[in-house]
Amino acid sequence: MARLVMKFGGTSVANIERIQHVAQIVKKAVDRGDEVAIVVSAMSGNTDQLVKWTRDVAPIHDTREYDTVVASGEQVTAGLAALALQEIGVSARSWLGWQIPIRTDGSHGGARIQDIDGAEIIRRFGEGQVAVVAGFQGLGPRNRITTLGRGGSDTSAVALAAALKADRCDIYTDVEGVYTCDPRIVAKARKLDKITYEEMLELASQGAKVLQTRSVEMAMNHKVRVQVLSSFTDAPGTLVVDEDEIVEQQVVSGIAHSLNEARVTLRGVADRPGVAAAIFGPLAEAGVNVDMIVQSNSVDGQRADMTFTLGRADLDRGLKLIESARDRIGYQELTADRDIAKVSVIGVGMRSHAGVAQQMFQALSSKGINIKVISTSEIKISVLIAAEYAELALRTLHTAYGLDAA
Amino acid sequence: MARLVMKFGGTSVANIERIQHVAQIVKKAVDRGDEVAIVVSAMSGNTDQLVKWTRDVAPIHDTREYDTVVASGEQVTAGLAALALQEIGVSARSWLGWQIPIRTDGSHGGARIQDIDGAEIIRRFGEGQVAVVAGFQGLGPRNRITTLGRGGSDTSAVALAAALKADRCDIYTDVEGVYTCDPRIVAKARKLDKITYEEMLELASQGAKVLQTRSVEMAMNHKVRVQVLSSFTDAPGTLVVDEDEIVEQQVVSGIAHSLNEARVTLRGVADRPGVAAAIFGPLAEAGVNVDMIVQSNSVDGQRADMTFTLGRADLDRGLKLIESARDRIGYQELTADRDIAKVSVIGVGMRSHAGVAQQMFQALSSKGINIKVISTSEIKISVLIAAEYAELALRTLHTAYGLDAA
Repeated sequence: MARLVMKFGGTSVANIERIQHVAQIVKKAVDRGDEVAIVVSAMSGNTDQLVKWTRDVAPIHDTREYDTVVASGEQVTAGLAALALQEIGVSARSWLGWQIPIRTDGSHGGARIQDIDGAEIIRRFGEGQVAVVAGFQGLGPRNRITTLGRGGSDTSAVALAAALKADRCDIYTDVEGVYTCDPRIVAKARKLDKITYEEMLELASQGAKVLQTRSVEMAMNHKVRVQVLSSFTDAPGTLVVDEDEIVEQQVVSGIAHSLNEARVTLRGVADRPGVAAAIFGPLAEAGVNVDMIVQSNSVDGQRADMTFTLGRADLDRGLKLIESARDRIGYQELTADRDIAKVSVIGVGMRSHAGVAQQMFQALSSKGINIKVISTSEIKISVLIAAEYAELALRTLHTAYGLDAA
Repeated sequence: MARLVMKFGGTSVANIERIQHVAQIVKKAVDRGDEVAIVVSAMSGNTDQLVKWTRDVAPIHDTREYDTVVASGEQVTAGLAALALQEIGVSARSWLGWQIPIRTDGSHGGARIQDIDGAEIIRRFGEGQVAVVAGFQGLGPRNRITTLGRGGSDTSAVALAAALKADRCDIYTDVEGVYTCDPRIVAKARKLDKITYEEMLELASQGAKVLQTRSVEMAMNHKVRVQVLSSFTDAPGTLVVDEDEIVEQQVVSGIAHSLNEARVTLRGVADRPGVAAAIFGPLAEAGVNVDMIVQSNSVDGQRADMTFTLGRADLDRGLKLIESARDRIGYQELTADRDIAKVSVIGVGMRSHAGVAQQMFQALSSKGINIKVISTSEIKISVLIAAEYAELALRTLHTAYGLDAA
């Protein structure tokens, strides 16, 4: 007997048939004797419709009302999933964020979970009842509904698993697990049996969409064992666990990529203290996230070039912010490049292996792929390349690091 | 300055444009200096979709989960309407049933309002804020969402008006008010300026769909002045008020009709005590509402015929129930008639005027319309006729009682 939290994303509850299928998956666990809480997303497409309505009414909106509207999607799925379970003889009840409650801070539209009271759900486990929890939502200050931001249902599930002291948190999605690389691009990509929290975190933040970054952080902090698996097949998924649970650690576990970034370069920036603050201060204030930053000094030591990447959707806004701060920054030329890709190799094994970066640079060089920017962390090396080389780079690196399926 | 509750039904909030139009109506009142709370229904069609989903998942369902799913429709409209008001510079916030709270009993799917705490809404009136209340929903026992049954938003609005001690409750709909007769059938139907609670109650329960019966009962009990008007035009509507507010009372105020009923006749029932209970007991237990009941003794005094009407949707079930109780009832023949119409003339003036019924019988007789069953109350006369004569009967009676527009 185990205590499980199962999370079902939008495609897993896309329609009545899928919701009934979810009920069957849950029933199997209940029949095994497991205690089960499930977390459900909105039916796929539903959230987009609700978001569109709020934007049609008010392009710049009160996020408290936005949350009231958008949270209704998960409310519908929670009720329907509870009904589907009851229909096949499984005792179940739905729980909305405010009913449990899942307390959050007041950052409407992107709230952070502060506390979950799992006592009543655990009590009802004793009566054999399944808890069906609406994901993505919580109760904020002044009794108002909050939402956790896009993909927040993953975070709901992991937080609930921590609060209930669950043995595992199963994240059901439309892929069979975490792969060494995107299988739609690299045919030889393999599903990983296990991956460490740190690697998963880097994969998620480097563009792999299988798990939301915040949920992985939370799993790592609360030591929640997470399994990523498909609700469309019976195949075992990928376990996200502590490093010491993985006996034979690969040097590189996976390769991620992102095509949603753009590069900005400021040439001839005055090389003096405070210039970085002058550039990035206005961006941070406007909520524009900057990723890779590279500063290169000019030969004469008077001027420098500053290059950084940001989300492509933020590019136009970012350029305007920099232009309006031109006097304070004092650059000579401002250029932007939309046709770039970021490719990252990730692996905790890098810590103890030298030459991993060199292997990457050689592999890319052998195919004539030019590296525009490099950025590294303890377990990750990211490079920026021309977007047209992205697929070639992924396949080349996948082979070079010995990740190809047999 | 007045304190108003305004209720907007499904067609008045059918899409974003209609919701924006509602915001303009509210803004006008706010600009006049009125304190305003609005009650909104789900966008038309939305509730039907949600109900269909619950039925697809579970034909016989846990009404607590049904309520959780279906109440989401009003939640969406409340948030969107608050946003639409803010967008045109009107301070507003949405209130869900559980946030106010609107406390109800535990009859999920058809809950009754027990108490509304209007203190915070009134406090915010002082700050110039409009309250946007999700109709149709409340908070039941064990912290669960309840719904008030179809058309329950009218009841929400009237109950809120009573709790807030509002000067008036304006029910915005897609017709301009209460008419002397259905204008789609009787071209000469007139909009009434005023009507009494009692008449409105009879009209609503005799088939006029403009207001929900329960909401009229509640308005009468709490002396809430109700106005029925259209959100599609600027025309003044119909005021539903106390009898003493109407100076010149017509003998007959309106004529209602219903085509959704069926007649059942049991011939040769033993004429002995307890037989009515044997017939109607099983129907009541099964939740089948019976309307007109007529018992006629046979010549020999040994046997009687029993005729009654019920909703057409309940007919097959009703007949089965009676057949299965045949031994206890002891009837000789059971017949049913689906092709009937009920026509009712209504007016508080009847109390002090004799001959109103006679006028009805003569008018119908002059057109060769046969009356099958008659039933009367203090302010209403209903007759059952063949359905094919319904339109003719309505036009004839409308003229006979002097209701035709000039």
